Amino acid sequence: MTEHPDPAPARRALYRRADLLPLLEPRSIAVIGASARAGAFGERTVANLADFTGRLHLVNPRYDRLGERPCHASIAALPEVPDLVVAATPMEAALQVVRDCAAAEVGALVLYAAGFAETGRPDRIALQAQLAAEARAGGVRLLGPNCIGLTDYARRAEISFVAIPRPAAPPARPALGIVSQSGNLGFALAQAVEAGAQIGRVLTCGNSGDIDVADLVAALAEDPNCSAIALLFEGMAEPQRLIEAAGIARRNNKPVVVHKLGTGEQGAQAAMSHTGSLAGAQEVYRAAFSRAGMVLCESYEGLLELASFLGKAGTPKAPGVAVLSTSGGAAIMAADRAEPHGVPLPQPGPEAQAVLAARIPEFGSARNPCDVTAQVLTDPGSLRDCMAALLADPAYGALLLPNGFAYDVATPRFRLLDELAARHGKVGCVVWTSQWLEGPGAREAEATERVALFRSMDRCMAAIAAWQARASAPLPEETPARLSPPGAREEAARLLAQARGSVLTEREAKAVLAAYGVPVVQEVLATDAEAAVRAAEATGYPVVLKVESPALPHKTEAGVIRLDLPDAAAVRAAFAEVMANAGRAAPDAPVNGVLVQPMVPRGIEIVVGARRDPLFGPTVLVGLGGVLVELLRDSAVALAPVGAAEARAMLDRLKGAPLLSGFRNLPAADLDTLVGIVRRVSELAADHAGHITEIDVNPVICAGTRQIAVDALISLDAEAPASDG
Amino acid sequence: MTEHPDPAPARRALYRRADLLPLLEPRSIAVIGASARAGAFGERTVANLADFTGRLHLVNPRYDRLGERPCHASIAALPEVPDLVVAATPMEAALQVVRDCAAAEVGALVLYAAGFAETGRPDRIALQAQLAAEARAGGVRLLGPNCIGLTDYARRAEISFVAIPRPAAPPARPALGIVSQSGNLGFALAQAVEAGAQIGRVLTCGNSGDIDVADLVAALAEDPNCSAIALLFEGMAEPQRLIEAAGIARRNNKPVVVHKLGTGEQGAQAAMSHTGSLAGAQEVYRAAFSRAGMVLCESYEGLLELASFLGKAGTPKAPGVAVLSTSGGAAIMAADRAEPHGVPLPQPGPEAQAVLAARIPEFGSARNPCDVTAQVLTDPGSLRDCMAALLADPAYGALLLPNGFAYDVATPRFRLLDELAARHGKVGCVVWTSQWLEGPGAREAEATERVALFRSMDRCMAAIAAWQARASAPLPEETPARLSPPGAREEAARLLAQARGSVLTEREAKAVLAAYGVPVVQEVLATDAEAAVRAAEATGYPVVLKVESPALPHKTEAGVIRLDLPDAAAVRAAFAEVMANAGRAAPDAPVNGVLVQPMVPRGIEIVVGARRDPLFGPTVLVGLGGVLVELLRDSAVALAPVGAAEARAMLDRLKGAPLLSGFRNLPAADLDTLVGIVRRVSELAADHAGHITEIDVNPVICAGTRQIAVDALISLDAEAPASDG
Repeated sequence: MTEHPDPAPARRALYRRADLLPLLEPRSIAVIGASARAGAFGERTVANLADFTGRLHLVNPRYDRLGERPCHASIAALPEVPDLVVAATPMEAALQVVRDCAAAEVGALVLYAAGFAETGRPDRIALQAQLAAEARAGGVRLLGPNCIGLTDYARRAEISFVAIPRPAAPPARPALGIVSQSGNLGFALAQAVEAGAQIGRVLTCGNSGDIDVADLVAALAEDPNCSAIALLFEGMAEPQRLIEAAGIARRNNKPVVVHKLGTGEQGAQAAMSHTGSLAGAQEVYRAAFSRAGMVLCESYEGLLELASFLGKAGTPKAPGVAVLSTSGGAAIMAADRAEPHGVPLPQPGPEAQAVLAARIPEFGSARNPCDVTAQVLTDPGSLRDCMAALLADPAYGALLLPNGFAYDVATPRFRLLDELAARHGKVGCVVWTSQWLEGPGAREAEATERVALFRSMDRCMAAIAAWQARASAPLPEETPARLSPPGAREEAARLLAQARGSVLTEREAKAVLAAYGVPVVQEVLATDAEAAVRAAEATGYPVVLKVESPALPHKTEAGVIRLDLPDAAAVRAAFAEVMANAGRAAPDAPVNGVLVQPMVPRGIEIVVGARRDPLFGPTVLVGLGGVLVELLRDSAVALAPVGAAEARAMLDRLKGAPLLSGFRNLPAADLDTLVGIVRRVSELAADHAGHITEIDVNPVICAGTRQIAVDALISLDAEAPASDG
Repeated sequence: MTEHPDPAPARRALYRRADLLPLLEPRSIAVIGASARAGAFGERTVANLADFTGRLHLVNPRYDRLGERPCHASIAALPEVPDLVVAATPMEAALQVVRDCAAAEVGALVLYAAGFAETGRPDRIALQAQLAAEARAGGVRLLGPNCIGLTDYARRAEISFVAIPRPAAPPARPALGIVSQSGNLGFALAQAVEAGAQIGRVLTCGNSGDIDVADLVAALAEDPNCSAIALLFEGMAEPQRLIEAAGIARRNNKPVVVHKLGTGEQGAQAAMSHTGSLAGAQEVYRAAFSRAGMVLCESYEGLLELASFLGKAGTPKAPGVAVLSTSGGAAIMAADRAEPHGVPLPQPGPEAQAVLAARIPEFGSARNPCDVTAQVLTDPGSLRDCMAALLADPAYGALLLPNGFAYDVATPRFRLLDELAARHGKVGCVVWTSQWLEGPGAREAEATERVALFRSMDRCMAAIAAWQARASAPLPEETPARLSPPGAREEAARLLAQARGSVLTEREAKAVLAAYGVPVVQEVLATDAEAAVRAAEATGYPVVLKVESPALPHKTEAGVIRLDLPDAAAVRAAFAEVMANAGRAAPDAPVNGVLVQPMVPRGIEIVVGARRDPLFGPTVLVGLGGVLVELLRDSAVALAPVGAAEARAMLDRLKGAPLLSGFRNLPAADLDTLVGIVRRVSELAADHAGHITEIDVNPVICAGTRQIAVDALISLDAEAPASDG
């Protein structure tokens, strides 16, 4: 029995940097299919490798020489065993290339050829699997097939058949690494080097036949020349591998910023019940990636900016941000965009204030955000003095400089900002409001050590907020402390084993929850109206009546629940009514009877749920009940189990969070109590992940520390063993 | 009596294009303060005018010549009366410059000097007003003070003391006009010309001493060389002027795209009651601008893209968009971003389908979004054929081409797209995923007639959605048909005149609403417990008790309301309780007694409100009651009065709109009935805009066509006359 079984255990351990050095830092490269024909993939590849600092070999039996270089008949005929082979050969030749590489003990192989698993054809899927298996068995690290390449700018190993983005010079210091599943978009990002972005490597993995994005992230995480990792991610069958790679990055203090593609509704549609539809697959990715310490980037356009900023920014020395503008409009824009991201723009301390007051004209603004006005054109020293004063002020961790004029004046400002930021251990942010997006000065800003360039005020503020959140929020415990009572697992396993269907009745589900210490409303099962009245008298009025049937999980819609019944007559009438409705809603379904429960007094309605994600395993969800959760999908998801801090953070993320602290005439909910319920449900989901597919505790009625589940649903995997507890 | 009095009537009519020709299309320009000193504002201005196609004169008594040109002692000494004078003189000289221009009958004057109203000093505000008054009296159109300039690229009239953005050549056809209050940001936008954006004019107005953004928008709206107007807007005392200018643009079919700065919370904080805090000033701006047919642009970065697109796109021939990608990743990105903006990506018809099937390899995707893969490198004809087939397909109004590679291959594709789009009367959208933002091809895409360039997939989809919405949604009627009963205005005026305080009691407010045909719950005022019981017996149980006191507008918080009282005993107990609470909540307040009302059965709770905006006058608000409106601010605002279509559109905008159609066990609300209530409240607010500051009908309980207001609040302007009805 495993504590939290992986639904799909990883097929192999991550490759680490040492495993991938022949691919990532090749000393020698051989190109199979080198060609004299202009436009051929082999010809383009060799042209792209013109500045490669290592040894380049050409392979093609049809030529003796190609230009200045000798051309060899085969890999076996090469004067040395190359670190890396790049195969510009058709699909049909791929298997032989793998075998030749294995025979020659080549370190790594890049396969351009398309037409494998991406066609969806079973024979091609099998062929790709065979390529990967033979490469692995032969000790050849395989990138591709259907891969358009990778670059190592330090060695000018610019490996692709497409027009390759080429920096003017390799980066002078540790720089960004780009990892992308999409080759086209990976190189689309990398083209930022043409405009001066500091990028060290671009790694794209095509079909991920063997090496996948997780291996590449892990390798970059161990690369001292990588400042931060920008990951363009679509999806993978074993995302736990990426979580593991993110762990390596975290331990090496290497920021990983991810932008996810494929965020459409399809995943959510597959979910079956209410809770499931809330915890759509995208939310689970977000939860898992955040928990692993990755920084999520909402926009494709902002991915490189955010990664580059985190690679330069270091640790925030103070939460405040100073804005120093030469434009009133840009100062307003800064204030506008700081607000939604919660970025504080505090006023300067007395020393900086004195400098601002002396240096800023009366028609400017000597308050943060500061506007020194266009006067700097005739008094450039004013900007310099204000910059120095603001960066020296302990209230500020960052200085933001909007730049509206992409002309000669900008560059010296950025150099000065870099120098001052470095001196104070802070970061400078240039927000490039000029729509001459690559105008003079942008390249110089990119090349600095401590100045990050943004082409959007909103993205800059979002980045600063992410930077501060990353620094201040500790990552959740990897194995949170356990809250449920001893023996809960075994007791729940026993109850689950007794369940007769794949959906537990409310009564069965609540018994399982009670075993984990979740407070549930008590009930009596009555099979006729008089028994219901007797149960109501014993419980005390008002009471609730609910039909118990595994075929009617959604009682409100089926009309098989009646609330707030004040007396015996009402109970009798309600009994007849709900039984009739049950008969109409599910004519052939077994009905066990009617549950009689006390009416729980008014409170905030909370939904707590769990769902087994096909990729990430058990997840837990919390949301505000009623229309908030169902209509506006105001819920938060995390991987189960969660500890106290993570459960609390989930509550804080809800749009309706202020409701929990009391709102108008609703009572407040004690947060510690609610955190406990979320943890207990998460532990139940995690303990029985092999068996429970879904839990829906809805609602939990909360008033202060009185918090009680009044309905619950647990669904089981019909295929699973009776219990893994 | 005016129907809908303007709170601040416009000071003067808009200037039209004919009024501003000396400024916008000067044949001759004189620069006062021309200088030999490098960096002086006058020296920079003359340098910027080096390519001016008209006649340039220099004025400075200290020189006889400057370089090649003669320099004159004064405006009076010039060889002709210039159309335009640009004054690079200090603040102290401004008044004399205005007088000299007026004396010489100069057509227009640009004043750079700062230090006027923007300082906040009363003497400087007065001085600015004097400048404007003397200029107007003298027939001189004044731009500024505190203005950094304007350009007319057709005449190369590039007027500024800052480094001026300069296109390689004037635009070949009608191009964008930029209008900005912020000079810095206006020219920051204009710098896009350096990268090939097609911009005809940049107009910035500094302090708007005389000419303001509304005048400039109106003038561009009449300019045949302007394709669309991009407006960067902060705020103005008389925004109705801008609404009027937008009307001119609408009649000339000239798109006006506005990005608003200054969207922070300050405005909303000033609002006093709940309804007011929902209808924050920003929402009113949005409502007013949308109603006037302006297109709102959420991001600064996207302003030029959206305006340029609308200037090129014409009228949509079909709602569908075809995506033709050479990258699977970009195709996914297109699908991801189409979804949240509601942009349809339908499948092609049989003819296009046949072409795609024949031309796209098995490892690509022949469905929309289409992925022709990197195969186009070896088979460029495939992309061409697919483009032609998709643009010929009647399902599509636009073809979107992601572009990941900013290299030589791109430009011919864009030219072909332009040609094909023009042939079919459609529009091409290039989404520039390459992060070489100004790489080869971008400039060529900008220069086309029918291809719009976007540097963000999300912004492209947002633009397409805005284009389709603009084409399909008729603008609201300027004076909507009236729904309230005849005599409502007079009856309400009579009731308002009787009101004793600045806040009407619930009973008074409901009487006013009833006069407008808003259904309100009936009630009886009881001054002791036994009277309350008698009223309850007459009304029928269950009943509601509410204290009536103008000092207790928010009854729930004060504990002076009790719901669902089933019998006489409950009424007696509740009476004592609410009176005691009233005494505690407002010890010295007058209490008229307790209102006894029937308990309205359960339904959807709606809030309908109105507020007099200090700038735009009466506005109407609708929102979903309870936590939705108060916590999540799920409300929609429009200028009052509204017609049926506009009121319906307000309901559609609510996040919680699905609730209105019935949700789980809640009844649906009849939308026509609710639209009627919104219209009636809007007419009440508009009719009495000089008197009523706020209306809060909260809640209206809705179940089908049974919709009834159970509480209401009306606040009056204590300063106003008793009634303007």
